[in-house]
Amino acid sequence: MAATAPVSEPLTGTGALGDVLSDLAASLPHITVLPPSAETVGYLDDAATRRARGDAASGPAVALPSTAEEVREVVRAASRHGVTIVPRGAGTGLSGGASATADQLVVSTERLNRIVEVAPLDEVAVVEPGVLNSALNEHLEAWGLFYAPDPASYEISTVGGNVATNAGGLRCAKYGVTRESVLALDVVLADGELITIGHRSIKGVTGLDLVSLFVGSEGVLGIVVRVTVRLRPIPVARRTVSAFFDSTAAGASALSAITRSPVRPAVVEFLDGRTLANIDHHRGTDLSGRGGSLLLIELDGYGIEEQFADLRDALEAVGGRVTQETDAAAEALWALRRGGRGFDERSWFAGGDIAVPKSRLPDVFAAFPDLEQRFGVEIGAVAHAGDGNLHPVITKPIPESGDPLTPPAELHDAADELARLALSLGGTVSGEHGIGTVKRELAALELSARNRAAQLAVKAALDPFEILNPGKAL
Amino acid sequence: MAATAPVSEPLTGTGALGDVLSDLAASLPHITVLPPSAETVGYLDDAATRRARGDAASGPAVALPSTAEEVREVVRAASRHGVTIVPRGAGTGLSGGASATADQLVVSTERLNRIVEVAPLDEVAVVEPGVLNSALNEHLEAWGLFYAPDPASYEISTVGGNVATNAGGLRCAKYGVTRESVLALDVVLADGELITIGHRSIKGVTGLDLVSLFVGSEGVLGIVVRVTVRLRPIPVARRTVSAFFDSTAAGASALSAITRSPVRPAVVEFLDGRTLANIDHHRGTDLSGRGGSLLLIELDGYGIEEQFADLRDALEAVGGRVTQETDAAAEALWALRRGGRGFDERSWFAGGDIAVPKSRLPDVFAAFPDLEQRFGVEIGAVAHAGDGNLHPVITKPIPESGDPLTPPAELHDAADELARLALSLGGTVSGEHGIGTVKRELAALELSARNRAAQLAVKAALDPFEILNPGKAL
Repeated sequence: MAATAPVSEPLTGTGALGDVLSDLAASLPHITVLPPSAETVGYLDDAATRRARGDAASGPAVALPSTAEEVREVVRAASRHGVTIVPRGAGTGLSGGASATADQLVVSTERLNRIVEVAPLDEVAVVEPGVLNSALNEHLEAWGLFYAPDPASYEISTVGGNVATNAGGLRCAKYGVTRESVLALDVVLADGELITIGHRSIKGVTGLDLVSLFVGSEGVLGIVVRVTVRLRPIPVARRTVSAFFDSTAAGASALSAITRSPVRPAVVEFLDGRTLANIDHHRGTDLSGRGGSLLLIELDGYGIEEQFADLRDALEAVGGRVTQETDAAAEALWALRRGGRGFDERSWFAGGDIAVPKSRLPDVFAAFPDLEQRFGVEIGAVAHAGDGNLHPVITKPIPESGDPLTPPAELHDAADELARLALSLGGTVSGEHGIGTVKRELAALELSARNRAAQLAVKAALDPFEILNPGKAL
Repeated sequence: MAATAPVSEPLTGTGALGDVLSDLAASLPHITVLPPSAETVGYLDDAATRRARGDAASGPAVALPSTAEEVREVVRAASRHGVTIVPRGAGTGLSGGASATADQLVVSTERLNRIVEVAPLDEVAVVEPGVLNSALNEHLEAWGLFYAPDPASYEISTVGGNVATNAGGLRCAKYGVTRESVLALDVVLADGELITIGHRSIKGVTGLDLVSLFVGSEGVLGIVVRVTVRLRPIPVARRTVSAFFDSTAAGASALSAITRSPVRPAVVEFLDGRTLANIDHHRGTDLSGRGGSLLLIELDGYGIEEQFADLRDALEAVGGRVTQETDAAAEALWALRRGGRGFDERSWFAGGDIAVPKSRLPDVFAAFPDLEQRFGVEIGAVAHAGDGNLHPVITKPIPESGDPLTPPAELHDAADELARLALSLGGTVSGEHGIGTVKRELAALELSARNRAAQLAVKAALDPFEILNPGKAL
């Protein structure tokens, strides 16, 4: 019951929040604002906290501005009454960065969803934050261009949400994370002022790089209302290569063979033995029949046959069974990878998105069996192996008497232990999902007190009254 | 004479600065500290202000710490007495970011010059800030790896200086600027505390991205004492391609032909007609005989023949005369490009490093003739055309009676006008050199008051007593 406490009392929009709602209704009736009600329950959580929270009777107050000016008005009204704001994209986040409480005002960017401009000769697009990642890429196809960041949620997550979390994805092995594709931002600050930071040119060093600071700041510094992103030409060729290995250990070690080669694939995903077995179990496939682990690779660009030859040589030398997949087989494999973390409603689940220096990935996988035994759980993982980022899938079957909403502490403990392992290997507790609310304790393990104080000072410099997403990220 | 005023009185290290020097001598005698003297004159300026300043009789006080701990001690001592610090790399900066005054303490990182570690399987190196950019790359060659940022000063500038300015260079067209190659930093803050920010893993989103904030911050937020950089494999092939065009306008327009093609060269440099003529004049070459402007391109990676074919088709379609250069010819051309901005001591010079959205480069070149006439100067430019960054070379012959140290206002005015043009085209006043002291007025044109206030708030959050490089960058 603890997890539902923040919303167990009805949300009436009383107190300071009520004043904001009255203000907005009275003076800015054109801005859509939903009062707390059963209708807004979906705005209480993001994908990280939704499952834990269970069913709530009522959601938070939600403002749905449709222009930057409306965002400014809403922020000013909230700021005036000291009501804190939770900026929200599509709510697909995996760290609780968009979860809200009864006394907060959710500011959703879902109606800021215009693709403002595509400038192919500048290789930039200008979009509002509520544009879906996939919608932008569908729109760009006609120009032969693409926007590189591709979190697994690309069909349901927004560019603004991706900016807030500095989302990664599969292709960032070659093309970098969201930060590398953002050139400029329009941001509404805590005082309601709008600033344009960055530039439409590819390069620029005028003043401090506030753009990079805002990317990944999880809505604690401002609300992004416009994004200028960098585009790239769709590669002249793409090729999917699979390499199956006898064991998880063999596959994990093979990653270094790619690093030693001159080939830099666009995507390098690693699926360990347990993940293959889980996918087989749930999808009726027979990946395990092909091997004990799988490196699933996308090559792109020029010289694809030369690239393939060098890659094949590198992987075969360390025991890989290497296949160039047909288009149909490739599509099926990627669908399994994107959809296939392999657990279901009959299991408790804990996850994560730790990242380690590339050479240390085998150490992480090697630690699973011991952790499984210590915590009585099952652990598999898929890794964005090209950049050392992995997603552990820690599960335990729910017994008849078990409460799906109350996973035993062991799952959480095992996830924490993996985060500690990542830190001990020189890595990080969050490679791409962010800290939000659910990883704050882990972040405290990673950041020194003085580092954290510096971060809080920066936050205070830009949001002195702690209006924006308090308690998140830092 | 005005330009020499800051050092016209002898620098005795009196007052607060004297107290710092006494403190350090008394309690930390192992730290090398040079008192103000004729010996330290070279530390007064960077490459931007040296020429304007002329000969000074005495330089500033200079601390030469050789460990991070010594940097901390020096910062603490300066901080205690309210003496401001000018962090300094090799002093090759082009914006006055490292220029000092008599009452300041220069903290040089030249003795922090160790390559601490190369980890090829992690694709990272850990270096101290005083390591020369070229020394790092020479060291990396044995591993088949390279560090991508390559400012034209790479043989004389340091990794730390490159971090301070977020240096660009030629290869950043494909590989990004310094920020894209920095994973983690050790930084001494204004209070003498050391923080480690970022991570050795390729990805990481724990907390605010202070690494990106520090990169390009020109020493106003802290002193970098260790840098973890990202490495890349040396490409399997490199090829130099030249494309000569009938005119500057034709060559500038051809840039869009590359953008429309699927080829993304590692380097795309554009030399306009006046630059070719200047190089010919000073070097005895006959580039002008080959055409009225030159695109000098480096392709790299796989499929170099396919890349060349696509590039050639794209450039020939817009009138280019395209040649694959032999290795020897390529080397000569790149040497001319790197060394060849084409002015000499008999000319007054003003420059810049404006950047514009890629498609607008032709507009900048098209503006030169009118500006030449208005200001009575000659203007040529080389451009890192792949990312819209260009270096105007504004010159005027010095008459017999002219003072080389006192260029007429027209040169400065013409440079300012070009910066304004860059802004009007959606660009920036500084693509890669930084703001330092010499571009503060231009930066004020670019940044809104609220943006600037946000930047100053961030600065104040990290350096509340303005100890670090005051008056620079912001």
